[in-house]
Amino acid sequence: MPTYKLTLCYDGSRYCGWQRQGNTENTIQAKVENAFSRILGEATELAASGRTDAGVHARAQVCSFHCTGELDCTAVLAALRAALPEDIGALTLERAGDRFHARLNCREKTYVYRVWNSAEPNVFERKYMYRYVGALNDAAMRRAAELLLGKHDFTSFCANRRMKKSAVREIRGIDIERRGGELRFSFTGNGFLYNMVRILVGTLIEVGAGERDAEDIPAVLSSLNRDRAGFTATAQGLILWDVRY
Amino acid sequence: MPTYKLTLCYDGSRYCGWQRQGNTENTIQAKVENAFSRILGEATELAASGRTDAGVHARAQVCSFHCTGELDCTAVLAALRAALPEDIGALTLERAGDRFHARLNCREKTYVYRVWNSAEPNVFERKYMYRYVGALNDAAMRRAAELLLGKHDFTSFCANRRMKKSAVREIRGIDIERRGGELRFSFTGNGFLYNMVRILVGTLIEVGAGERDAEDIPAVLSSLNRDRAGFTATAQGLILWDVRY
Repeated sequence: MPTYKLTLCYDGSRYCGWQRQGNTENTIQAKVENAFSRILGEATELAASGRTDAGVHARAQVCSFHCTGELDCTAVLAALRAALPEDIGALTLERAGDRFHARLNCREKTYVYRVWNSAEPNVFERKYMYRYVGALNDAAMRRAAELLLGKHDFTSFCANRRMKKSAVREIRGIDIERRGGELRFSFTGNGFLYNMVRILVGTLIEVGAGERDAEDIPAVLSSLNRDRAGFTATAQGLILWDVRY
Repeated sequence: MPTYKLTLCYDGSRYCGWQRQGNTENTIQAKVENAFSRILGEATELAASGRTDAGVHARAQVCSFHCTGELDCTAVLAALRAALPEDIGALTLERAGDRFHARLNCREKTYVYRVWNSAEPNVFERKYMYRYVGALNDAAMRRAAELLLGKHDFTSFCANRRMKKSAVREIRGIDIERRGGELRFSFTGNGFLYNMVRILVGTLIEVGAGERDAEDIPAVLSSLNRDRAGFTATAQGLILWDVRY
């Protein structure tokens, strides 16, 4: 059966995350699979590069699927765009190699976390940023970020306390930049655990706020204890930015 | 009584426009006046630079008001920011000259109208753009825009068919620019009639789509007949951008 690669964007605000769960139709996966099934006339199961949690957005989420016949990608993409709700968009659809799998073949991902770090209002992007009004020390956050880089067991930064598989991941880059009132964190790595980016951001914000020391990061990592890391920053600031194969 | 100048921004999506109407509390004016009255302990009436219609946004709407005592602008601005809903923001509050009136003293305004002119999805800014997928000829729209510049009776571009006052306005600038899939119109003038910017945009889009000729604009203007102009573009693409005194 031919394999296809679909790239989606979505505003996750009103969804219970990517993954279809029991009877909940209010997931992005369910919306896209249902639209596809209507268009193709056969049940279609999508494999995404990874789940996104409730309220998390995607600038570019990649999925793979099989179907029985060859698709006219241009026509199917147009039909999909017309069928999807206005907060889910289909960016591209293309034929992929038969062995392509969006999750298993994923080599690297970038997540962006946006913080509105100003007392001024920002009404137009309020749904895509976490609001934090207090002063944040960028140099301290950058020092902490440096200490997070590389290959580590990130158990302390994982919300799943019964994780059985390896929690070793490699963070290849953390960029922290300001654009006006916005503070933007970008994380690039070979994979991220459940809530990992949000806990990383919460921890960096605590460092920036002077509530914890950047130099404590190695001890937090080696503790393998979620309670030693910072708070979980809200979902609305998180965007799956890019997935690379 | 001292006079103050307040600058607001708002996402107009869920409001019935600026102006307080009878029992409708769902207006921006009602939300801000109610917040102010609670903070100041006295009824406050705001004069805006002009009304915005249901669904129209503001990057910077200017209002004036009087109150009985002197205000600590920093403290009142902070209280107002805390009291307003998340889709209405208070940008600045300052003491103004005693004769300042936000509507009567307004010298010039700029409105921006954003069109998403692409078949690609744009989920994150969808509430602030009008979606038009067809091809649009920029040169033809720019020619039509040139013919709209200057001082004219804009009765043909006014939705109020029982307008008793003068419909003469001066348009000082129309910019048409593209940024990726976005087509952005900016209109600067000394004042705009009811629905005028939206009818101007509808007419320019019809020119761009080849449905009407740019050279017909002078005849549309001189007809003083609303039916001769184009459709009224939807409210959601319109943003009151700037007000000058």
